Amino acid sequence: MDKINILSKYKEFEAIWSPHCIAELNDQKVLLAKINGEFVWHSHKNEDELFYVIKGKLNMEYRDKKVEVLPGEMIVVPKGVEHRPSAKIETWILLFEPTTTKHTGDVITEITKDNYPKI
Amino acid sequence: MDKINILSKYKEFEAIWSPHCIAELNDQKVLLAKINGEFVWHSHKNEDELFYVIKGKLNMEYRDKKVEVLPGEMIVVPKGVEHRPSAKIETWILLFEPTTTKHTGDVITEITKDNYPKI
Repeated sequence: MDKINILSKYKEFEAIWSPHCIAELNDQKVLLAKINGEFVWHSHKNEDELFYVIKGKLNMEYRDKKVEVLPGEMIVVPKGVEHRPSAKIETWILLFEPTTTKHTGDVITEITKDNYPKI
Repeated sequence: MDKINILSKYKEFEAIWSPHCIAELNDQKVLLAKINGEFVWHSHKNEDELFYVIKGKLNMEYRDKKVEVLPGEMIVVPKGVEHRPSAKIETWILLFEPTTTKHTGDVITEITKDNYPKI
């Protein structure tokens, strides 16, 4: 019920590709992440995923196209759709997705996080 | 799967206290609204509600306190909690809430909208 300042929350962590949870509501999580470089190709069987860009530039690759998402823009990846987020500079994103979502989907890699720290 | 530019979407409507839907995912809606003045006191029995401020200043009143929410900040109102949003200047907010949520909760007034235009 208190307000949450997004930029202040980003100051609380430095790790790349490591989502941190700032709020939960209606079985959904609001996550912040800092990204840089290429993530893994993956999809989420049951969950749509929203990416909102705070800073930098998110490249969202699908198998048949690529979308550049800038600060103040968002993109929704529907369930089942293979995608690979990447960034050429450090980029800050806000994610909105069900609490059940794993960030690498069904693909388990060395960067897969089992849980997201609350900040 | 295409990107959505928030500021461009705000240019598509002028009405105050009239949420417009820019995306749906996981049975949740992403809504944009322009607000000014006082809304009605209300609560949502089953739905938590997220307010994110894009421009202006949102005053979120609870029965026992008031929180000022500025651009880049968000606030989550838990289900069942009476609240009254207001703004002294035109303020642009983004809402994230279940598709079942009515913006005036159980309170039906002349400003209650039955459905939200998609833009």
